[in-house]
Amino acid sequence: MNNAQLLRVQNFNVSSDGFGAGEPQSLERPFGHVDPGEIFAWCGATASWPYRTGGGGTRGLDDYFVRDYDRNIGAEIMGRNKFGPQRGPWEDHEWQGWWGDEPPFHTPVFVMTHHTRPSFTLSDTTFHFVDDDPAAVLAQAREAARGKDVRLGGGATVIRQFLDAGLVDTLHVAVSRAEFGSGARLWESPDELDDRFHHEAVPSPSGLTHHLFWRRDLE
Amino acid sequence: MNNAQLLRVQNFNVSSDGFGAGEPQSLERPFGHVDPGEIFAWCGATASWPYRTGGGGTRGLDDYFVRDYDRNIGAEIMGRNKFGPQRGPWEDHEWQGWWGDEPPFHTPVFVMTHHTRPSFTLSDTTFHFVDDDPAAVLAQAREAARGKDVRLGGGATVIRQFLDAGLVDTLHVAVSRAEFGSGARLWESPDELDDRFHHEAVPSPSGLTHHLFWRRDLE
Repeated sequence: MNNAQLLRVQNFNVSSDGFGAGEPQSLERPFGHVDPGEIFAWCGATASWPYRTGGGGTRGLDDYFVRDYDRNIGAEIMGRNKFGPQRGPWEDHEWQGWWGDEPPFHTPVFVMTHHTRPSFTLSDTTFHFVDDDPAAVLAQAREAARGKDVRLGGGATVIRQFLDAGLVDTLHVAVSRAEFGSGARLWESPDELDDRFHHEAVPSPSGLTHHLFWRRDLE
Repeated sequence: MNNAQLLRVQNFNVSSDGFGAGEPQSLERPFGHVDPGEIFAWCGATASWPYRTGGGGTRGLDDYFVRDYDRNIGAEIMGRNKFGPQRGPWEDHEWQGWWGDEPPFHTPVFVMTHHTRPSFTLSDTTFHFVDDDPAAVLAQAREAARGKDVRLGGGATVIRQFLDAGLVDTLHVAVSRAEFGSGARLWESPDELDDRFHHEAVPSPSGLTHHLFWRRDLE
């Protein structure tokens, strides 16, 4: 068994042309010109999707990825653009994220921003706001995760920062057939990471392709 | 979210011609004429394999299946032939399974046999011996699982009994390229189950094919 605390990207969605979201992002259009329903449809069809009401749902390949989302995760790191549509200094602190009173994280969440604000707690999720470089934020998240792994939640820009700093251990990226044309780019092609990561591309019967990466020097 | 207690087959290995083990099974040859190393090689290569010493291991598709093995599992049902090589009445009770002092189950285990013996505990696994039909054994295992799912551990003969009784909710069967020629048969072809189960066949980059089934009437 491996006991290191990994930094893991899980269930991150990008288009066939490599974008994690469209533009411009706003309260009404959190993924810009792209329909979030289109992005999350594969998750929403599965039995393990946390927002599912009632029973049913698929239990095939996609469901394995959805139910693995919280396995051994003790903290999340996300960018401010995932947390909310605001840019620049906070006008007030009323905004508490997109997720209502029961956010799906159930761990400490570290929001990277140049405009910090006090921490707050919703149910079993506590949001902290940190103005630091990726390595320093990861150190804080690892400590908060108490021995468990840390999930890097995105968006694409934040994942790029951590990749460029060499801090990401594993990635699961779900690539859809859709083309977004523009927006927040994760990559030009998944093969860009092959010099540093083992890489498996697994087509799902639902139509997407799951790309799995793990660092070549991971012990 | 689904709150029913499912009966799940997980990581069950069969050959390309549908056998879970060779023959004859013995203490020296628990899988008969088939090499267990061949059967478990795909699991053993993954980072999550519980018997892994040191670090390393793959973190691709196969690893998702291996690490899902214990997720939300509260009890296991197995056949006596999985528990040990003896047949007929017990000569003594010295045999405590193949798995040493730390069995990988970590839950109650119900061993189906016409020759019962007293329960015993190794670490956090307790083995019970039950002479009952599949529905009655499942009822006992569900109660012991305290709201979690029940894993149906095999062998092939026991899985067939539960399938024929209509009691299995989901199956993950890893089909290798090897041919065993004879032994304990699970099926002639995976497609046999398609009348009652949704079915996805997912080829793994490692060479096997993961077959995923869930009941068509599962809510």
